[in-house]
Amino acid sequence: MAQLLSSSSSLTIFSRNKPYLKPFNQCSMSFSTSAACNNSTYPFRKLFLQRQKPRKSLVLQVSAVSTSIETPVQTSSGEPSKPQRVMVIGGDGYCGWATALHLSKKGYEVAIVDNLIRRLFDHQLGLDSLTPISSIQNRIRCWKSLTGKSIELYIGDICDFEFLTETFKSFEPDAVVHFGEQRSAPYSMIDRPRAVFTQQNNVIGTLNVLFAIKEFREQCHLVKLGTMGEYGTPNIDIEEGYITITHNGRTDTLPYPKQASSFYHLSKVHDSHNIAFTCKAWGIRATDLNQGVVYGLRTDETAMHEELCNRFDYDGIFGTALNRFCVQAAVGHPLTVYGKGGQTRGYLDIRDTVQCVELAIANPANPGEFRVFNQFTEQFSVNQLAALVTKAGGKLGLNVETITVPNPRVEAEEHYYNAKHTKLVELGLKPHLLSDSLLDSLLNFAIQYKDRVDKKQIMPSISWRKIGVKPKTVTA
Amino acid sequence: MAQLLSSSSSLTIFSRNKPYLKPFNQCSMSFSTSAACNNSTYPFRKLFLQRQKPRKSLVLQVSAVSTSIETPVQTSSGEPSKPQRVMVIGGDGYCGWATALHLSKKGYEVAIVDNLIRRLFDHQLGLDSLTPISSIQNRIRCWKSLTGKSIELYIGDICDFEFLTETFKSFEPDAVVHFGEQRSAPYSMIDRPRAVFTQQNNVIGTLNVLFAIKEFREQCHLVKLGTMGEYGTPNIDIEEGYITITHNGRTDTLPYPKQASSFYHLSKVHDSHNIAFTCKAWGIRATDLNQGVVYGLRTDETAMHEELCNRFDYDGIFGTALNRFCVQAAVGHPLTVYGKGGQTRGYLDIRDTVQCVELAIANPANPGEFRVFNQFTEQFSVNQLAALVTKAGGKLGLNVETITVPNPRVEAEEHYYNAKHTKLVELGLKPHLLSDSLLDSLLNFAIQYKDRVDKKQIMPSISWRKIGVKPKTVTA
Repeated sequence: MAQLLSSSSSLTIFSRNKPYLKPFNQCSMSFSTSAACNNSTYPFRKLFLQRQKPRKSLVLQVSAVSTSIETPVQTSSGEPSKPQRVMVIGGDGYCGWATALHLSKKGYEVAIVDNLIRRLFDHQLGLDSLTPISSIQNRIRCWKSLTGKSIELYIGDICDFEFLTETFKSFEPDAVVHFGEQRSAPYSMIDRPRAVFTQQNNVIGTLNVLFAIKEFREQCHLVKLGTMGEYGTPNIDIEEGYITITHNGRTDTLPYPKQASSFYHLSKVHDSHNIAFTCKAWGIRATDLNQGVVYGLRTDETAMHEELCNRFDYDGIFGTALNRFCVQAAVGHPLTVYGKGGQTRGYLDIRDTVQCVELAIANPANPGEFRVFNQFTEQFSVNQLAALVTKAGGKLGLNVETITVPNPRVEAEEHYYNAKHTKLVELGLKPHLLSDSLLDSLLNFAIQYKDRVDKKQIMPSISWRKIGVKPKTVTA
Repeated sequence: MAQLLSSSSSLTIFSRNKPYLKPFNQCSMSFSTSAACNNSTYPFRKLFLQRQKPRKSLVLQVSAVSTSIETPVQTSSGEPSKPQRVMVIGGDGYCGWATALHLSKKGYEVAIVDNLIRRLFDHQLGLDSLTPISSIQNRIRCWKSLTGKSIELYIGDICDFEFLTETFKSFEPDAVVHFGEQRSAPYSMIDRPRAVFTQQNNVIGTLNVLFAIKEFREQCHLVKLGTMGEYGTPNIDIEEGYITITHNGRTDTLPYPKQASSFYHLSKVHDSHNIAFTCKAWGIRATDLNQGVVYGLRTDETAMHEELCNRFDYDGIFGTALNRFCVQAAVGHPLTVYGKGGQTRGYLDIRDTVQCVELAIANPANPGEFRVFNQFTEQFSVNQLAALVTKAGGKLGLNVETITVPNPRVEAEEHYYNAKHTKLVELGLKPHLLSDSLLDSLLNFAIQYKDRVDKKQIMPSISWRKIGVKPKTVTA
């Protein structure tokens, strides 16, 4: 039974033993559409509900659902892995929500832990997702009505260790996927309070997760989202976490040097060092996923119903390069290339994000191992992305222009970049490479929702060099 | 004029314009000993006081003082540097106090910024310095009475940005020496709250200093105390901050990889990354002094009067290897070697700490430069130190034994270690190498104060592996 001591004012629990899903509790046999999903424009099927074990569990028998329910993936040794309990911290966010659904579909028991502060950032900054998104409560209800699968929900702040303790004791995770950080570089560069918030929130939150694993679930595998931005843009090949160095006749394999370029990216560097230490000192098992820039909107699961739709950020603070360009093309705004546009990074489709996380969970790190994977599938420069979007837009009849804007960041605009990314492929990743059809799809989504675009949010407003010490109100 | 808005309950200001030093304000011509120093057992001289510029400044004419008052050191270019205003954050601590006095003696205008929390740690943990130490207020009064030199004092927490803002606006530093961090590895491993405190306090405090420099004193040179422990014990030579790597046919000079082994050491790694970024993004000029283990008690300045006496920690939490061994030898406690004793580190005399900091200030980093010096003079293993103390003790008639205790830390006990340390020597450092006479002197101090030793504090009580999540009360 879930027990929470959070001081959070809004708290909803879906316990695996006593589901609080009222529409279902009130049903005895069957219904055609759930309350949460009854405004659907997507095709979905009748659900039949039967309460087989009163007070213990709620079993849904699903006659036909648009995607099949699968068992967890095989481990690399060929042995089927046991069903696992996975806590997704930050499971209401862009990557977290898609991952939570994917894992749930794959047969994992999933709990989402989130304080929903990403939604607060939008309110405070006057931003909004291109796509309309439902509340986390409705999202989870809808998922259950479609698939019969419960996702537990713990609303609270992992920096509050008392809250985190109770989520661990209640859910007893076998793996924790940690997306629960402030994840925008520009956000971390708005002003001093937000720079401090970003580092404090991210570093202390992760420390708390490490302590919770040590104290309550020592075999739990931590799958932590890092970023390719931790490496910066060195003039040598980027390896996956470690580099073997021969120096003055001696050789050692050491952590790859880090050169992060925002307070956000730095917070991930700090996390990586903290996690590496706890693996060594306490035997924590951890995988650091140094993720590239994620693009795309739909995964198989979020596409099942409009209430499951993922968020899509196009603004200058949370929007990332490719997604933002597609929206710019759709609304007739020139593509905004920062500086020379030679900035090259690793990119991946959000469908590969969820696949990579699942692979990491299904093939856990050993006790004491700090494993680092570079999680991206292709490299592009900003200029290359702009050219691809221009071409794809042209095919849809859009007249796409590109402008150069002064780079608000401090970064090399022309540089060598060659980052390794073979470890996840070795575990079985089948990449969704950037294709014309994906760009068409993204552009069509952007066109579909173009009336929701606030053009004032497109241009970069945050300068790396001009950040000040006083709290900044971003006004319309 | 000093203006402070701190919420601190205890606040004392020695402004450079309106000194609040009552004993002096009440004197018109001369006195023989200051109120602050009138219980001295050390020889010192008559002071003559003359108020030359009422309301503006207070000038002390000193007839004879045990050490001469010097002008700031020459820069490496041979040009005399201008007198500089140096803010010493953490100036009430072991290294900070010695440094503040040394800089004051050398002709710098010095302000100490400290929240005095190091003294609170002693109260909370039931610890005490081997040597009796005066209040910071009495220390500063005594210094003024001996030398005529004022040291301004700002009591407050640099994590409170409003407080830090006012210290910057009031004092207008040309250089900031930042010792103001929780500096004990075992302290950071007591429990989760103290681990979190250490990282939060150290990382956010340094972030605030960086923002204060950017906003209020952009030419101010940051001299930041790091630690040799940031590097860990790699199987290759340790360079000073950076390493040139040739990899797959390409070459770059990158930050030296970090492998810290406590939450404290990790906090310094985080600081280093944050500072490096601000040098690049904002043009901050910074020197990171990766200091080794400091030993010794007296500097020329702290030896001038017993009220200036430095603290000396011998306990299992704040005491470091050599100092702790000397106290163990003096009280007949076996020297406690953790594990195999092959742990090798860089060491330096506290007289070299103050010399190194002065050299860094006198030869500032360029704007945008993140300069790293390894600040130590000799390498020793723990077993080597134990042997040296055993030998020195024998000469004083002490029967010194050594015992092996289970290592409370997680660290390699036999390893390669060769760390470079030439940059400070190139700037003019004249090392005080560890000598028989210094060991004699240290042992004699320990014998002098042996009645103050609490033997219960000597054994290590903090385990790297057993750290728990709940606040721990360390009981006698």
